[in-house]
Amino acid sequence: MSNENIVIHRQLLTSQVVAVFERLGVTCEDAEAIARVLICADQWGVNSHGVLRVERYVRCLQSGGISAHAELVIEQQSGSWARASANGGLGIPASCKATALAIRLAKEKGIGVVNVRQSHHNGAEGVYADEIARQGMIGMVMSTGNPIMAVTGSCEATIGNNPFAYAVPAGKYGTLMMDVAMSAVADGKVQLAKATGKQLPPGCILDKNGRPSVEPEEYLSGGVLLPFGAHKGYGLSVMVECMAGILSGAALTHDINSWNETPGKCGNTGHLIIAMDIEKMMPVEAFTKSVETMIEQFKSAKRAEGVEEIYYPGELEQKRKAEAGDMVTIIPSTWESLCRAAEAVGLTMKKE
Amino acid sequence: MSNENIVIHRQLLTSQVVAVFERLGVTCEDAEAIARVLICADQWGVNSHGVLRVERYVRCLQSGGISAHAELVIEQQSGSWARASANGGLGIPASCKATALAIRLAKEKGIGVVNVRQSHHNGAEGVYADEIARQGMIGMVMSTGNPIMAVTGSCEATIGNNPFAYAVPAGKYGTLMMDVAMSAVADGKVQLAKATGKQLPPGCILDKNGRPSVEPEEYLSGGVLLPFGAHKGYGLSVMVECMAGILSGAALTHDINSWNETPGKCGNTGHLIIAMDIEKMMPVEAFTKSVETMIEQFKSAKRAEGVEEIYYPGELEQKRKAEAGDMVTIIPSTWESLCRAAEAVGLTMKKE
Repeated sequence: MSNENIVIHRQLLTSQVVAVFERLGVTCEDAEAIARVLICADQWGVNSHGVLRVERYVRCLQSGGISAHAELVIEQQSGSWARASANGGLGIPASCKATALAIRLAKEKGIGVVNVRQSHHNGAEGVYADEIARQGMIGMVMSTGNPIMAVTGSCEATIGNNPFAYAVPAGKYGTLMMDVAMSAVADGKVQLAKATGKQLPPGCILDKNGRPSVEPEEYLSGGVLLPFGAHKGYGLSVMVECMAGILSGAALTHDINSWNETPGKCGNTGHLIIAMDIEKMMPVEAFTKSVETMIEQFKSAKRAEGVEEIYYPGELEQKRKAEAGDMVTIIPSTWESLCRAAEAVGLTMKKE
Repeated sequence: MSNENIVIHRQLLTSQVVAVFERLGVTCEDAEAIARVLICADQWGVNSHGVLRVERYVRCLQSGGISAHAELVIEQQSGSWARASANGGLGIPASCKATALAIRLAKEKGIGVVNVRQSHHNGAEGVYADEIARQGMIGMVMSTGNPIMAVTGSCEATIGNNPFAYAVPAGKYGTLMMDVAMSAVADGKVQLAKATGKQLPPGCILDKNGRPSVEPEEYLSGGVLLPFGAHKGYGLSVMVECMAGILSGAALTHDINSWNETPGKCGNTGHLIIAMDIEKMMPVEAFTKSVETMIEQFKSAKRAEGVEEIYYPGELEQKRKAEAGDMVTIIPSTWESLCRAAEAVGLTMKKE
């Protein structure tokens, strides 16, 4: 295995990722959604939520835990709110369609709130929030996951690290966006740390015996993640469980199946997607003007020692994507994973 | 000054707090709202947001920074959303009325979203979220404040520590509620650490030169608070600024007047109050049944070494209030502050 990163054209990577999912019976539209969302995360530099995930989705599709043919069905709708079921299908296409629905509801009603149940891992929440912000709206997106984090006071996996993202339009600064998991470090980042042979910062995980550790391996072999900010991250993970899980009618905590441990079972995770149409409330330009002013205040604030630049939330991701242009950089272990995924469906990945 | 806490009947404390505000021209209804919200925080054990605040409100009313006669006016309303102005009046009555409006909108439309501008400090956000939850709804409440926290990478006050609260009905467990500020530690806790000769945990403050410190004194002599969870708390404080501040049409960051430093100026803080009527989405009993199950999972989870009990968010506050019953416990310095506030309007506080 080479130690050099692979730099591949976005279109070439997209067409190959699409081909892998089409081989498994996924529609072209859905396969393109998966490629778009994952590659966006890679271009943001959030590689833990990029094409690294393809292999696992493939495994779940092949094991029957994800249905390739499932369609998102709106089960209930009233006013600004709707609940849909992904029917055990892929989380990303379901979330893309639910995001489009939230935007449509917001355009009609000012606010759109969409719950999704019977869904699966949906990549980086921030991609959906960002899409909403690009419509001149405020986006909030949250999802549940199977327990991998200890609640405050506990030393075993009790709740998912339930990611939460929001984004707002920021005028000349594009989009202001935050996408965080409720654990001090994301599961994907632990895997990436292991893949790149790095240690974790202290306070992120407990090993299987409930002792603090900085070794990614200790988490991956039966350890547990800790919430960020102690009771605050705990409280926020519970909020996501209530709003994206319980309110969606999705599975609760331990009833959510792990896509790693039981790839043959539907995860039944839940999502909540909120879109607020700013134009219905105030002129979008007035809103973004204030966001611009705020960003300029942040960037011109007195810097702490050793800090070269202050970033607004989402600035680095946006900057990295602009710099990446048409290219996507992939680390060797992720490329190997992609190659295995392609092989599993009788295809071969090409770098150029 | 005695060192003993004052334990006073809630009704006696209420009637005296009400009398203080009525003396300043506040209507009985508004004065009762203030007493109710502040005393609720005291009974929760969140004394930093209890009747300790009366003196400061009185000072602002007397200095003209808060208008006693201002009424909450709905300026714009469309579908599930409304924006109101507190017109420079008291933050608590304005927030109570905005909460009632959000609940009414949610009852009609499923979801109610209310922005408030030209407002002032409104006590503990959790009280409003809790009120919404008691209607069988999900409540989210957030408010802006003047800058007292450094954004990540900065070493000066750039943004408020912008509190956020949510609450959901929890069946036999009452209400599940979280109310947090975005700083790692509250200003009041730094002062307490100094008074008791204790150090702060790492990551809470920077000294006046922008260097990390654990010495309370370094914060009090020109230092600054840091967000909890680094960029995560930073990102959440920006979310509150955008949704409760900018979207309300309230003042932005440095344009928010500090009620401590400039009590004669309208703070022009903003609030956002969201109510989601669960019954419109699923039977409330099904929702609370799942919340109960989740709580039972938390409480029976394997405990970390030295931990006697695992609490669900808001459990301690609820427990303390139940234990307090009809009584309110007030520390001597807060009682002295209340006495000064009463004196300032020609009244005398009575303990019994």
